[in-house]
Amino acid sequence: VFNTKKIFFRQKMSAPLIDKYRKMATFDWRKLKAAVEGEEHVRLKAEVVAKMKAEPVFQRDYRVLSREEHREVVHQRWKKIVEWGLFKDPYSDLENFHALTETLEAYDQGTSARLFLHGNVFGAAVKSMGTERHKELVQQIENNEIVGAFCLTEIGHGSNTAEIQTTATFDNGELVFNSPDVGAIKCWAGNVSHSATHVVVYAQLHVGGKNEGFHGFVIQVRCPKTFQTLPGITIGDMGSKPGCWQGVENGWIEFKNHRTPLSALLNKGCDITPDGKYVTSFKSASEKQSVSLGTLSVGRLGIIAKGMMACTFASTIAIRYSVARRQFGPEKGAENEIPVLEYPLQQYRLFPYLSAAICIRIFQKTFVEKFTEYMMRVMMGEKSEELSEFSKEVHALSSGAKPVATWLGVESLGEARKACGGHGFLHMSRLNTLRDDNDPSQTFEGENFMILQQTSNILLGKVSSIGTIDTPMSTMSFLNSNPSKFSSWSSNPVNDVLSAYRYLTYHLLQTTSSEAKKLKGAGKNSFEVRNEIQVHRAVNLSVAYTEHTMIDWVQKFVEEVEDDTVKRVLQKVLNLFSLFLLERHLATLYITGYASGGKFGEDLREKLRHAVVELKPESMALVDSIAPDDFILHSALGASDGRAYDHIMEEFRKYTNEQPKWVCDLAQFLQKRSQTSKL
Amino acid sequence: VFNTKKIFFRQKMSAPLIDKYRKMATFDWRKLKAAVEGEEHVRLKAEVVAKMKAEPVFQRDYRVLSREEHREVVHQRWKKIVEWGLFKDPYSDLENFHALTETLEAYDQGTSARLFLHGNVFGAAVKSMGTERHKELVQQIENNEIVGAFCLTEIGHGSNTAEIQTTATFDNGELVFNSPDVGAIKCWAGNVSHSATHVVVYAQLHVGGKNEGFHGFVIQVRCPKTFQTLPGITIGDMGSKPGCWQGVENGWIEFKNHRTPLSALLNKGCDITPDGKYVTSFKSASEKQSVSLGTLSVGRLGIIAKGMMACTFASTIAIRYSVARRQFGPEKGAENEIPVLEYPLQQYRLFPYLSAAICIRIFQKTFVEKFTEYMMRVMMGEKSEELSEFSKEVHALSSGAKPVATWLGVESLGEARKACGGHGFLHMSRLNTLRDDNDPSQTFEGENFMILQQTSNILLGKVSSIGTIDTPMSTMSFLNSNPSKFSSWSSNPVNDVLSAYRYLTYHLLQTTSSEAKKLKGAGKNSFEVRNEIQVHRAVNLSVAYTEHTMIDWVQKFVEEVEDDTVKRVLQKVLNLFSLFLLERHLATLYITGYASGGKFGEDLREKLRHAVVELKPESMALVDSIAPDDFILHSALGASDGRAYDHIMEEFRKYTNEQPKWVCDLAQFLQKRSQTSKL
Ligand SMILES: Cc1cc2nc3c(=O)[nH]c(=O)nc-3n(C[C@H](O)[C@H](O)[C@H](O)COP(=O)(O)OP(=O)(O)OC[C@H]3O[C@@H](n4cnc5c(N)ncnc54)[C@H](O)[C@@H]3O)c2cc1C
Ligand SMILES: Cc1cc2nc3c(=O)[nH]c(=O)nc-3n(C[C@H](O)[C@H](O)[C@H](O)COP(=O)(O)OP(=O)(O)OC[C@H]3O[C@@H](n4cnc5c(N)ncnc54)[C@H](O)[C@@H]3O)c2cc1C
Repeated sequence: VFNTKKIFFRQKMSAPLIDKYRKMATFDWRKLKAAVEGEEHVRLKAEVVAKMKAEPVFQRDYRVLSREEHREVVHQRWKKIVEWGLFKDPYSDLENFHALTETLEAYDQGTSARLFLHGNVFGAAVKSMGTERHKELVQQIENNEIVGAFCLTEIGHGSNTAEIQTTATFDNGELVFNSPDVGAIKCWAGNVSHSATHVVVYAQLHVGGKNEGFHGFVIQVRCPKTFQTLPGITIGDMGSKPGCWQGVENGWIEFKNHRTPLSALLNKGCDITPDGKYVTSFKSASEKQSVSLGTLSVGRLGIIAKGMMACTFASTIAIRYSVARRQFGPEKGAENEIPVLEYPLQQYRLFPYLSAAICIRIFQKTFVEKFTEYMMRVMMGEKSEELSEFSKEVHALSSGAKPVATWLGVESLGEARKACGGHGFLHMSRLNTLRDDNDPSQTFEGENFMILQQTSNILLGKVSSIGTIDTPMSTMSFLNSNPSKFSSWSSNPVNDVLSAYRYLTYHLLQTTSSEAKKLKGAGKNSFEVRNEIQVHRAVNLSVAYTEHTMIDWVQKFVEEVEDDTVKRVLQKVLNLFSLFLLERHLATLYITGYASGGKFGEDLREKLRHAVVELKPESMALVDSIAPDDFILHSALGASDGRAYDHIMEEFRKYTNEQPKWVCDLAQFLQKRSQTSKL
Repeated sequence: VFNTKKIFFRQKMSAPLIDKYRKMATFDWRKLKAAVEGEEHVRLKAEVVAKMKAEPVFQRDYRVLSREEHREVVHQRWKKIVEWGLFKDPYSDLENFHALTETLEAYDQGTSARLFLHGNVFGAAVKSMGTERHKELVQQIENNEIVGAFCLTEIGHGSNTAEIQTTATFDNGELVFNSPDVGAIKCWAGNVSHSATHVVVYAQLHVGGKNEGFHGFVIQVRCPKTFQTLPGITIGDMGSKPGCWQGVENGWIEFKNHRTPLSALLNKGCDITPDGKYVTSFKSASEKQSVSLGTLSVGRLGIIAKGMMACTFASTIAIRYSVARRQFGPEKGAENEIPVLEYPLQQYRLFPYLSAAICIRIFQKTFVEKFTEYMMRVMMGEKSEELSEFSKEVHALSSGAKPVATWLGVESLGEARKACGGHGFLHMSRLNTLRDDNDPSQTFEGENFMILQQTSNILLGKVSSIGTIDTPMSTMSFLNSNPSKFSSWSSNPVNDVLSAYRYLTYHLLQTTSSEAKKLKGAGKNSFEVRNEIQVHRAVNLSVAYTEHTMIDWVQKFVEEVEDDTVKRVLQKVLNLFSLFLLERHLATLYITGYASGGKFGEDLREKLRHAVVELKPESMALVDSIAPDDFILHSALGASDGRAYDHIMEEFRKYTNEQPKWVCDLAQFLQKRSQTSKL
């Protein structure tokens, strides 16, 4: 047993109404939190929060900062975290790393971006692609003596990284960087505008007049003392951006004959000899690329967590506010009004995201565990067919789960804003800002639709397999098993949902594949074929495959939970999540022939409504089990004490009797109007 | 024939790629524009744009303004428009009013809010509820000698206006205003924080110890010279808000024994005698309320146009950018990359909103015409059963169309941002700002879900009618006709879609009604019944009814178009719009038994994909026909010259070599880190 007082320290829970809802629950939210997140994780997060609360630089109010103010404050907070020394290599202290990451991400994604981009993107790239000769640099990175950024994207190329246009030309024992045109200017790289001293930059490597293709380099871009840019380098900022990204220095870099020593080349697996010969141990460009599949997945796994946090914020803020907000009632009189949470429609709009917050967390955690096992094997140098199968499966699933999670996350924040009515639109609700914060998660680390295509490509590769498809994570075993149609509902909604998903995924795979064959037969090239099978087919296929895996893994997790009260409520949560996801495929289930007749769909919707209602008594305690500390949550509508109106008015009072200067001008203008009218 | 040069003055169309797409069209965009909008409307808008372009105060760049700067600039622009004298009573010069409104709304919804709230909300309320004794005030309003605001919402009450808690108590020949508690403080009223001299305020009227209920009053709140608030009144701002609403003075007002003369009561149909007796000519509260149904619809009609403008911006910016943006291709090499508009998926994601922009415009215009006819009859004092039926029908449809249009609008902006990839996230794309601008349209002038319930209530009232339901706008004629199931596809997709909608609406009405009866039978009160039939039933019913009417009216409009080339392309537009909307109901079509078997759904989706592809060659010219002038559009990604990268870089260059002050601090910090590590 753990000392709940110490790690679950929190909030004065004082408003009577919200407490009434808390008491409806059949379980102890602390136990559920511990079961889902792990006790140590909860403890570590609490520690980080306490540290932050005690630091003046982390205090904040509801004012909107200017671009300049925003970046300065992010810089100050970043310094503090660096000084704490908590943000180390993820693999050396995984638990600590996760706790800090999650807390920072919830506090402000802009601050965590500054840390991540240096350590986990720039730093990771140097480590994974560099060699002995970059050792000193790695030391400086780890010790935060320099600031790094990751420059892949250009004005003209994001998704299609292979075609980036920056050139690095071998000349006289050095490398010369150029941006041949506007489209080749590097952009979007965080930390670049003001702070970066070094960057990892990708370019086409030209040696002896030949383009050896896409390569990574690490170069210095500024003097660390004066912060002046080096010769041949122009750097600028990208101007204003929405949400927390206003505080992030996404910048652009233009190269004009910038010269660096040869050591800039990140030379694992390839090199240029001093006399100007290009050598490589990769057999093909695709081999080189496949080595980097794993690293791509790390990023995507992190982004899945962003989707989870978005759902967490959305449901926490909107559900707590829905209890404070009373509107209409069975009888006249304000005293008869009911909390809007009582409306079945309001529950139907919000509870799915509450269930998503919990289920995506469990799924992501499971995925991270399996991924860590995979990475361990890679790092131990294993070279087996099974491992390369593992790599593909990890890639297929992360490329599916990142879109599913981030779309849900952004959607949840939009719905939460609307569910909070007018007050949801106040800046102090934090909902629109959070929406902006999360919006680009749909685009970076692989544009959602683009990577869904990678999932479907991998799945389509399985069509002709014979026998059970036996992959390391067992996510595809049913893919050539011709699952059976709907016969009847069982007593377990999740099993019913999983059966439906297996049928759906199988049939989408078949129809997508036969559509592809048809198009090929009609003389289309493979590029055209890949593009023309996306709508209604390959996209749905990837989503269905991913959601099936999510539900399956969460079900397995729930079955292992020891505490019965916790297990029962988690089962309710998953029931809702799984029915909610499946209902969105209802039309496709009919089309693929899983069921026919109106009753199936009506039953499915009835089960969904039922699952929503079942969650009502548990909802407030579930929110307590996922909600970040009030200090991190930072929402006048979502505070744990349920006193939304008091927090709103407290903020409003700060703006009492403001008289901006131009009011004089207004007074004179009105005066003039009234004089003219009297003439 | 009209002089296209003069009224369709515009843009240098110079980028070769975008021009190539323009040339694919089978029609002249100017002719289509004139057919849809009306030549005079186009001319008037062009005039307003030219006026604005010539005024320094309307110039703007892509910087984000602070709350203070934002409001000052809105004030200055407002002054200029008032001076122009264009913004007059809508009924005295409807064409001019619409042209100005649309232009201003597209330019900046915050600026138009300032004008609207004074003239068309505050002013309209005084006119419609006031009498002789408010005549002088009306003059001052029309002449802009005072600034007005409209105070209905309170901290604790928005949707349920009947239960607002502000009190106006008759005392000694005067009225005394009080806010009994925090929940009763007025809020959200635009123009209030700094500018309003007068407000229309709603309160419970207490006379002789009796609450006579909800009434409207007009009171002065500030001295027009010093702008000090009057005794018993505290006013403040609501702090930061997203998007253009940062520039709008949504404020709060607290009353503490504020005394006003009796004339403050807006006394049409009711009054207080000098000796303190309340008199009224309304027979019931509901009669009083039904008189105001019409005025509610005016607002909602305006908001439908916001949804249309949102779709217009989204499709203009994203489709133009999708031609400039090239990514991937059938062969390696950047020169082989194709515009992302060529991807069927990209088309599928964007063209529906292009079709929505055009169809919602046609629908809204038709609705305004019918509504004007209705208002004329009301103003001429007609009191017939048919007119009261008209009123209900107008209310049902406006309460359905406002949610449908605003949801589509906000959705379109989200999709457009994603479709523009990373660059869509730049502030200068304007997409996220526009999303924030439009977000509250889902909530104000009637919270979307709340008013959908009003639509379904009216429809449910028709269940037991016998014979054709003959309403003035003929939107309900099929509601008790038991429409037939799907038999086969015709050659006209819109007819097929309309048949499906009739079936759908009819069956949703039946099932919603029988569900309601069942719940009543089970002893639920009518409040509970109304709430429990919303999910999957009443909500879908209202949406289906509305969409059927939209499509029906647009089809009728298209049939009347004279120019054959224009008619043909508008038919394509409507084909897509109608299939796009219907496809979202596919699952419900199966459930209600319109069709069975996978083929129907597969066919419907195939037709939808086909309709998307059909629009490809027309899309760029269609965008030209709806796009606001570049000056109004104000998007680096969406400019009509198709040179997105140039505009982006032009803006980026403004931020070259920025060195904020704290960079010194960063340099020292890095220095210190490297010294410590050497110890
Ligand atoms: C906040 C933020 C931070 C970032 N930070 C960094 C950073 O630190 N370093 C860095 O290098 N980059 C960074 N990026 C850039 C980011 O990685 C790219 O924006 C991302 O990879 C998407 O690529 P894109 O912008 O080229 O989208 P595009 O590929 O141009 O997408 C545009 C549209 O084309 C569609 N499309 C593209 N290909 C296909 C296809 N094959 N089939 C169908 N549709 C297709 C997409 O779905 C989308 O609708 C950042 C971006 C943002 C927004
Ligand atoms: C930008 C902006 C400008 C505004 N300007 C003005 C102004 O100038 N003057 C003014 O007086 N007001 C103004 N308002 C206030 C606006 O009119 C209200 O916010 C609006 O009427 C919605 O009411 P609410 O906020 O009470 O929402 P609520 O009713 O509190 O909605 C909260 C939730 O409850 C749900 N809900 C409520 N009732 C039901 C039901 N019966 N069944 C199911 N669900 C239900 C809603 O769907 C929503 O999810 C403004 C608001 C905004 C955002």
